[in-house]
Amino acid sequence: MTTYSSALQDHEAVASGAKSTLSVLGKHLDRIGSSNPEIDAFAALDPDVSRKMAREIDPKAPLSGVVLAVKDNMDTADFPSSYGSPLYLEHHPQADAAAVALARIAGATIIGKTVTTEFAASRVGRTGNPHRPDHTPGGSSSGSAAAVASGMAHVAFGTQTVGSVIRPAAFCGVVGFKPSFAMIPRIGMKVVADSVDTIGVFARSVPDASLLFEAVSEIKTPPALKVKGLKIGVCQTPFWDQADAATQAHLTAVADRLKAAGAKVVDLPMPQGWSEIYEWHKTICEYEGARNMAHEMRVGRDFIGPDVIVQWDRGRKISNEVYAEAMNMGRRLRQEWDKIAKSVDVVLTPSATGEAPAGRGNTGDPIFNGLWTFLRLPCVTLPTGLGPTGLPLGSQFIGKRRHDGALLAACAGLEAALAKQASPSR
Amino acid sequence: MTTYSSALQDHEAVASGAKSTLSVLGKHLDRIGSSNPEIDAFAALDPDVSRKMAREIDPKAPLSGVVLAVKDNMDTADFPSSYGSPLYLEHHPQADAAAVALARIAGATIIGKTVTTEFAASRVGRTGNPHRPDHTPGGSSSGSAAAVASGMAHVAFGTQTVGSVIRPAAFCGVVGFKPSFAMIPRIGMKVVADSVDTIGVFARSVPDASLLFEAVSEIKTPPALKVKGLKIGVCQTPFWDQADAATQAHLTAVADRLKAAGAKVVDLPMPQGWSEIYEWHKTICEYEGARNMAHEMRVGRDFIGPDVIVQWDRGRKISNEVYAEAMNMGRRLRQEWDKIAKSVDVVLTPSATGEAPAGRGNTGDPIFNGLWTFLRLPCVTLPTGLGPTGLPLGSQFIGKRRHDGALLAACAGLEAALAKQASPSR
Repeated sequence: MTTYSSALQDHEAVASGAKSTLSVLGKHLDRIGSSNPEIDAFAALDPDVSRKMAREIDPKAPLSGVVLAVKDNMDTADFPSSYGSPLYLEHHPQADAAAVALARIAGATIIGKTVTTEFAASRVGRTGNPHRPDHTPGGSSSGSAAAVASGMAHVAFGTQTVGSVIRPAAFCGVVGFKPSFAMIPRIGMKVVADSVDTIGVFARSVPDASLLFEAVSEIKTPPALKVKGLKIGVCQTPFWDQADAATQAHLTAVADRLKAAGAKVVDLPMPQGWSEIYEWHKTICEYEGARNMAHEMRVGRDFIGPDVIVQWDRGRKISNEVYAEAMNMGRRLRQEWDKIAKSVDVVLTPSATGEAPAGRGNTGDPIFNGLWTFLRLPCVTLPTGLGPTGLPLGSQFIGKRRHDGALLAACAGLEAALAKQASPSR
Repeated sequence: MTTYSSALQDHEAVASGAKSTLSVLGKHLDRIGSSNPEIDAFAALDPDVSRKMAREIDPKAPLSGVVLAVKDNMDTADFPSSYGSPLYLEHHPQADAAAVALARIAGATIIGKTVTTEFAASRVGRTGNPHRPDHTPGGSSSGSAAAVASGMAHVAFGTQTVGSVIRPAAFCGVVGFKPSFAMIPRIGMKVVADSVDTIGVFARSVPDASLLFEAVSEIKTPPALKVKGLKIGVCQTPFWDQADAATQAHLTAVADRLKAAGAKVVDLPMPQGWSEIYEWHKTICEYEGARNMAHEMRVGRDFIGPDVIVQWDRGRKISNEVYAEAMNMGRRLRQEWDKIAKSVDVVLTPSATGEAPAGRGNTGDPIFNGLWTFLRLPCVTLPTGLGPTGLPLGSQFIGKRRHDGALLAACAGLEAALAKQASPSR
């Protein structure tokens, strides 16, 4: 794919006076003009609004020159916010979501709202993968992943309930970062599962992801860690068999490449009996979703897609006791996992089961994501190669809870080390 | 004060056909007509909307005949939602908050929106205490407490960040229930401190509080516990000296009354060094509030009250490290407290520092509430007597985290036992 200038490059160009925020925005609007008709990444665009924003930005602001796309399940005062639902087609919230406001305070230019699957709960998508438009970009943050991959935005906000940041980032060959639970302020996001939903970041490099994350969370990323001596635990998870052969081989190859770069790579199996972990997570998501969406289910049931209705109807039947058990399990497993993972710096695990599936309708399987979301751990997917049909494959790196800066620093080092090597799967 | 029919009584009358939802609503609208001009408990009323709702309710629904007031920091599709802020004066959200929708599904009639202090963050109020209108009803759920105390609603939703349910309930002589963290779905509430804010319930009896709580949370309250043999731990907290002499004497008297009723009463001191607990809680609230309200601070700073601005400006300066330390402290202290409190069934502790202060401007001191909110424990305040000037005093009972039904069952027993006795302070 084409190489686009990074958020950091354009920010520095704006800060130094070499470029204007308006010219940087213009380049992105041009790419939207040429790419978006095919990719369909945006739920709302308003170039005049974006230009007005760009004109008012202080070139010295930390995100000046940074073009940000916002998933459409986050409220924006200047763009409609439809949550991927016909119930909210003409919905104009009064306020920006907190994360959007923080990004604006930091000088970001909002280029538009990106397509989310319905309430970020559906697996039915409409956006195309920039690498092959008749394939899905993944979901639910479909538009954010596709917009960043195709240079229509430097960075984007997405959200993850199960695997809605990591999976689409992997499918689109970009960096995806799902922070520790709720590390980016969530107010003004259409939260569906309150104890789970987390705002994340899409970017084309780890430093670009850090730039946006730091601006909205004030959590600094230390300098990139050296890969030499870094302890990496490879976790196949209980779902290894659901990864296709190419993904399994790719993960092993990435581990070998990192070993060659000087990392200490060890196996880090999950304990026996954790195969239910994905189901516990699903129980929480469906229980909370069914209740949090009570208004929509009460007044707009006929306008909600059948796959979402099925989830929430099922969620409504989950008893409080079963939910409480899943929540308790979460607390217990988080403590257990923290002990297990203490011995390594980062965990390496698949980002998805394989390449992006064919067709735009199905956004793919989040089986390798729900467990880490359940554990409330920070997750980064890096684009680490191409699969058998030439679509991107990612590798997922997991950090320690609430040590998001440390994970990003490790991933910056890993990204740089991997870039120096020739990918065996390319 | 006058005795009003309970939610349970009116619900049973409607279910049996003895009353209509419309006639029950009418009685409450009449009381609003006579009492509200003086009390000023409502931020929004629309009798036609409420009547339409009442007419459509199935008499067999679990909350039929129950008249519910909703704090104005929770969204409602049929009433404006102003969050106590001039920034949101004409704000008409598209959706009901999830808790409101769940109450409507269960057949409740919404009678209006109750006054909240600005963004539920200010301590500056406007509503009067029904027991003495030139005194505060407490805050931030000022209108909810006042509406329930004066028979303008059977029950009401409030929210608590520090002490915004328990304190006003105590000041107004009603039952206040702040569940375990986030037990009532929060979507559509104007959350300010995401890791803290919890929706709670006001009622004139524990069974009425349970009725509403069960309908929206599906958590059943077991039958009222017998007081005989109940183990009650009296916790003076590190703030005992801040309670006035009457409150200290009252709590001791309540403990004695419960002992006389057969309870086993023991002292349950907080460990040394926990005197900082209130400050840690404040750190979290101000840090999160400053960031979650980034939009309002960006576009509407001039329309935000000075006491709120001070909090969020201070919060913005709290570093992520200090915040992370406070969050870690929360996790550690919760575990420690759980061990300490394991030996008792419920904890007895002051609800407030004294009677409701004079004047409407200052909603009083939440020093006896923030620590329990920080510990994420369920809290109930019961009206247990009158203070030296004849205003209500409450006693706060704390349960075990996520065992909200058990706390309500204990409080139903305690309420019944106390009602049988003559209060020494009456």
